[in-house]
Amino acid sequence: MANYKAPIQDMQFVLHDVFKADDLWASMPSTSEVTPDLVSAILEEGARVCENELFPINRQGDEEGCTWKDGEVTTPTGFKEAYATYAESGWLSLGGDPEFGGQGMPKMLTVMFEEMVYAANTSFALYPALTAGACLCLLHHASDELKQTYLPPMYEGRWSGSMCLTEPHCGTDLGIMKTKAVPGDDGTYKISGTKIFITGGEHDLNENIIHLVLAKLPDAPAGPKGISLFVVPKFKVNADGSLGERNLLACGSIEHKMGIKGSATCVMNFDGAEGYLVGEENRGLAAMFTMMNYERLSIGLQGIGLGDVSYQLAREYALERIQSRSPAGKVQPDQVADPIIVHPDVRRMLLTQRAYTEGGRAFAAYVGMWLDMAKGHPDDATRTKAEGLVALLTPVAKAYFTDRGLDATVLGQQVLGGHGYIREWGLEQFVRDARIAQIYEGTNGIQALDLMGRKIAANQGAFFQSFKQEVQAFIDSTPDLAEFNGPLADALARLDDATTAVLNQVKDDPNAIGAASCDYLNLFGLTAYAYMWAMMASAAKAQDSAFHRTKLETARFFMQRLLPESLGYHAKVLAGSETLMATPADAF
Amino acid sequence: MANYKAPIQDMQFVLHDVFKADDLWASMPSTSEVTPDLVSAILEEGARVCENELFPINRQGDEEGCTWKDGEVTTPTGFKEAYATYAESGWLSLGGDPEFGGQGMPKMLTVMFEEMVYAANTSFALYPALTAGACLCLLHHASDELKQTYLPPMYEGRWSGSMCLTEPHCGTDLGIMKTKAVPGDDGTYKISGTKIFITGGEHDLNENIIHLVLAKLPDAPAGPKGISLFVVPKFKVNADGSLGERNLLACGSIEHKMGIKGSATCVMNFDGAEGYLVGEENRGLAAMFTMMNYERLSIGLQGIGLGDVSYQLAREYALERIQSRSPAGKVQPDQVADPIIVHPDVRRMLLTQRAYTEGGRAFAAYVGMWLDMAKGHPDDATRTKAEGLVALLTPVAKAYFTDRGLDATVLGQQVLGGHGYIREWGLEQFVRDARIAQIYEGTNGIQALDLMGRKIAANQGAFFQSFKQEVQAFIDSTPDLAEFNGPLADALARLDDATTAVLNQVKDDPNAIGAASCDYLNLFGLTAYAYMWAMMASAAKAQDSAFHRTKLETARFFMQRLLPESLGYHAKVLAGSETLMATPADAF
Repeated sequence: MANYKAPIQDMQFVLHDVFKADDLWASMPSTSEVTPDLVSAILEEGARVCENELFPINRQGDEEGCTWKDGEVTTPTGFKEAYATYAESGWLSLGGDPEFGGQGMPKMLTVMFEEMVYAANTSFALYPALTAGACLCLLHHASDELKQTYLPPMYEGRWSGSMCLTEPHCGTDLGIMKTKAVPGDDGTYKISGTKIFITGGEHDLNENIIHLVLAKLPDAPAGPKGISLFVVPKFKVNADGSLGERNLLACGSIEHKMGIKGSATCVMNFDGAEGYLVGEENRGLAAMFTMMNYERLSIGLQGIGLGDVSYQLAREYALERIQSRSPAGKVQPDQVADPIIVHPDVRRMLLTQRAYTEGGRAFAAYVGMWLDMAKGHPDDATRTKAEGLVALLTPVAKAYFTDRGLDATVLGQQVLGGHGYIREWGLEQFVRDARIAQIYEGTNGIQALDLMGRKIAANQGAFFQSFKQEVQAFIDSTPDLAEFNGPLADALARLDDATTAVLNQVKDDPNAIGAASCDYLNLFGLTAYAYMWAMMASAAKAQDSAFHRTKLETARFFMQRLLPESLGYHAKVLAGSETLMATPADAF
Repeated sequence: MANYKAPIQDMQFVLHDVFKADDLWASMPSTSEVTPDLVSAILEEGARVCENELFPINRQGDEEGCTWKDGEVTTPTGFKEAYATYAESGWLSLGGDPEFGGQGMPKMLTVMFEEMVYAANTSFALYPALTAGACLCLLHHASDELKQTYLPPMYEGRWSGSMCLTEPHCGTDLGIMKTKAVPGDDGTYKISGTKIFITGGEHDLNENIIHLVLAKLPDAPAGPKGISLFVVPKFKVNADGSLGERNLLACGSIEHKMGIKGSATCVMNFDGAEGYLVGEENRGLAAMFTMMNYERLSIGLQGIGLGDVSYQLAREYALERIQSRSPAGKVQPDQVADPIIVHPDVRRMLLTQRAYTEGGRAFAAYVGMWLDMAKGHPDDATRTKAEGLVALLTPVAKAYFTDRGLDATVLGQQVLGGHGYIREWGLEQFVRDARIAQIYEGTNGIQALDLMGRKIAANQGAFFQSFKQEVQAFIDSTPDLAEFNGPLADALARLDDATTAVLNQVKDDPNAIGAASCDYLNLFGLTAYAYMWAMMASAAKAQDSAFHRTKLETARFFMQRLLPESLGYHAKVLAGSETLMATPADAF
């Protein structure tokens, strides 16, 4: 089977040529030490671990899955060893805060590394991803004592993290959760309840697992404003940082799933476990959202990475598989048939995968750039603008990356025909692994509601105006790019019109937001990708190599053969909620 | 878990109210005995076997899969018993020729039954589906002696059929196949070679398996015109019809697949096996196409059936799952939350499933109707027209049913959120089982090439004109249906324009057909569904019940929220092949 190769050249192109990351990094104190050499070293070393350590254990991990016995979870063969290598090489601290042992690399760079890890081995990737998110949440909301205790060993990879939100009766609607936290006399709390779908809730990769658990105090207000956040370690931690006694929690079972079989999805039972409050009482959901927003972008990268590895294997097959003749005449007259890459429809599938993957990669860097600016830009107004754009673009990234990620993996499978359906070829695993990304960390329907409701309607489109101005300024500043800017401007106009339409609809229709949300998000995602492709075309035009020519060709493909879908999404948004709400529930 | 209920009311509506099947059947000698009572009895008895025998063993069949040992294949628990019941009740002979013991039911009716079987248990459904296709091929092309020998026991279900085309190095391009047939002195042939991906090539359901094998004679011309078709039974048949000695063929292994795990996908090794020529030497591919066209419509039904069962389980969940509040105000104030069916986006997913399923069901009946007319209509001109429409519509049905089938099963899974990804809930199995239908019996890309090349370009759009006139005549005859006919007419105009555009493109671009094919097929499918929904709306308007009101509401949903996708497909087709062909193969 073909191997995964991390797309370093494209990542360098996006960082340096498209977004001039070096100038940005040099301009901010928090990133002033990030040099091109350092970036190259990180990408190349990251590629090495992904290609040589993680990808080779991916297929077998799917076959074996995780196993549960008496509360213990065993990960697939090779995961423990790979995790040790990964931790020792410092990858868990890449984006961490230097004050606690992190390397402080900008998000714009870490998204590139994360994408590689998901591409190489999505099941494996989830263990560090959850740990990184938990660290970020502690960093922003926990007391200094908690940070000093937990962050260094988590950055080192000795301890990992989990996120305990969902319960059997509630996922999206956390306000109705039942897990209880009873305060003790010593400032600690006793946590009791059952959490489900807990990624990495139990495993054998390292020595301790730090659960971030949402629970309700006895006197908490009803609903989402009565939820508090607690650190609940698997093993309590002694004053000197060594591991103490086992806490009163256990993994009751693991789920049997469609995919990500090497990732342990756990039922976690807390039975009066000792926990420590993070942030303020009853403010837990806001704190958890720090972690969830981080995870949402991360999970988006799962879609991009899986789309890319699927593309790489499908391309290899299309170049090697000999079948039928080119419609334009024999390409290999000395063979019985031509490689299937001669066929326009095979190219359509591969180019679609490629356009989604590379467009998504650029958009991930773009969101990462605004995240870095929101965190470290010296100018107040820029930070405020960046915060708005991050809020606006995060749900688009999570949902659009993962929806297109499923599409891309399905296309890669299709290129292989019957072989795509056979497990040993690996393409079908990518489809199964990609599918969960549309569901967890808030389903893509929830992302769309977040976009349409909180990020658009709640501020009368103010964040959108900021994005629109960005795109318009690019168009205005590149008059020589009409071939790409024309379609981009058309799509932007459609998105603008759809935004205005929904802002009008909501005035007298409470269902307008939900009715428009999903199609609106797709329209937004397509337009954002068009902006990325126009920017990439602009950067590629300045240079002349096979890589840059292919970039321009893929940009043209995107504009002519994918962007027209925006016509349909626009029309759907304008249709409003009437046909969705007409049918009584019992007539479904 | 919820149960599958066969949608008998909708099937009756489609047959009797939409297509006036009773009038048609009464008008043709071949179907004059098909009465409404008989149709009801078949649908109700069919529903009983699907709901009570096949659906209950579907999930476990997926968990167990088939197992191979020493050339023998064991199907999952319950399959053998269910097959015995199925065969004894005569279901294998439903559409068979009465001269050899078949029941001669019209295709328009058998598509309804087949859909149920796929919905209840796709893995199981494939064994009878392949047998029915093999019977049809024998009926049309084999000698009387072969028909007398093989058809009665196959209709009885004592023997089953398989279709042996694909080899390790060729699937789409059968012209380069290597399997050999050496003629003997006694009129038989010795068949040698390896066939892969053979559905039902070996199993334990009954006593004999009749393989239809494509192979090349020693002096055969190169390419597709040098392929002959042979009957190769697992056990040779004695003169009295009893089983003789084992033939020289064996199942070498079975594939481990993404889904349809209860269906045995076999590597078949023929090692000088005795075979009997079907039809003429070197004309095998044409004969096999009789079977393949039958299977193509059948496989389309797999997409519809799986979309329906996924819808049924998702609807049940949406009515029962309590989570969050309706945006329009509490619906269940005495509960902590409302059922999720209150949310517009959940309704969008369910209505999309429903619109695809019911639109597809009507279109399957429509294609079945033309098949029945092509076979049995007394008027020559009508038969000729029907043959053209069947040729045109079969690739659309196969590909569009199955592409939308995958979409529908993915949506059903999404309605369940995290539970949709867990095996025990069953929704993820439907996705895995649906995925193969886009690949086998000619990938959907091949269907699109067939449509665009052989069915449109090869006759300068003559078949399309026939279809267009049908739709236009309906529009002209229903002036009171503007709400539905307006969008239908717009879509038809787009399809017409796209057809003209491609017919122009092909004049000087050999890649035009392949470049347009897939988007053109989607545009065609959407337009055909719009026609179905307009016809269903017309029939529903005449009556007043919850069923008929829901039908009208779903028709409105289709027109306003799904049909706008035709805008994008139209634009993509017009874009031509340039962006697909620009990139050199080695730059992918």
